[in-house]
Amino acid sequence: MLALLLQVVQGLSEGTGLAIMGAGIGAGLVALGAGLGIGRIGGSAMESIARQPEATARIQTAMIIAAALIEGVALFGVVVCLLISFKG
Amino acid sequence: MLALLLQVVQGLSEGTGLAIMGAGIGAGLVALGAGLGIGRIGGSAMESIARQPEATARIQTAMIIAAALIEGVALFGVVVCLLISFKG
Amino acid sequence: MLALLLQVVQGLSEGTGLAIMGAGIGAGLVALGAGLGIGRIGGSAMESIARQPEATARIQTAMIIAAALIEGVALFGVVVCLLISFKG
Repeated sequence: MLALLLQVVQGLSEGTGLAIMGAGIGAGLVALGAGLGIGRIGGSAMESIARQPEATARIQTAMIIAAALIEGVALFGVVVCLLISFKG
Repeated sequence: MLALLLQVVQGLSEGTGLAIMGAGIGAGLVALGAGLGIGRIGGSAMESIARQPEATARIQTAMIIAAALIEGVALFGVVVCLLISFKG
Repeated sequence: MLALLLQVVQGLSEGTGLAIMGAGIGAGLVALGAGLGIGRIGGSAMESIARQPEATARIQTAMIIAAALIEGVALFGVVVCLLISFKG
């Protein structure tokens, strides 16, 4: 009796795969959030500069402060996803 | 009796597949976020330039700053997804 | 007795299939994001040129800059999905 079951499947276990899948989707959601947030801030800043061009410096300063707060969380979130992706 | 059951299934394991699926969906979500965010900023910049053509330089500077912040997170997120996709 | 049960199941494993599914969905999301973003920018540019026809050159310059930023992320995301799709 020679039962030759040849199944060539290499790679990660199912659990590790699910973990890394979460990391990829998470990185995408982080960038989605940052895009929505900074986009809203930047769009309103454009409109405000057009409305009061003499207040450009003050609007731009506030814009950078607010956008940097989102950027800080977003970069931290992407780094967490990067660390998860190293588990495989 | 020679029962030769030859099942040739080549490719990734289920876990690796799930991980890379996450990388693909993640890369898509990153580009969705960047598109929504930079789109909002760019759209408002267009309208602002039309409203105050003499403030074009200042609006364009603020537009590039805000868009670059989104671009930074987005490129970082796509690179994370690219690194995950190399796991297969 | 020579029962030769030769079952040749060729094709992708389940994992490879999941990975390529992710690549397909990801490429779709990338194009969705780029469409929404560049659509918003282009639409606003049209309306702005109609409002201030003498500012056409400046609006067009800003439009190309903003759209190019989205295009950069989108092309990178599609390339990641393309690389994933080669895994099959």
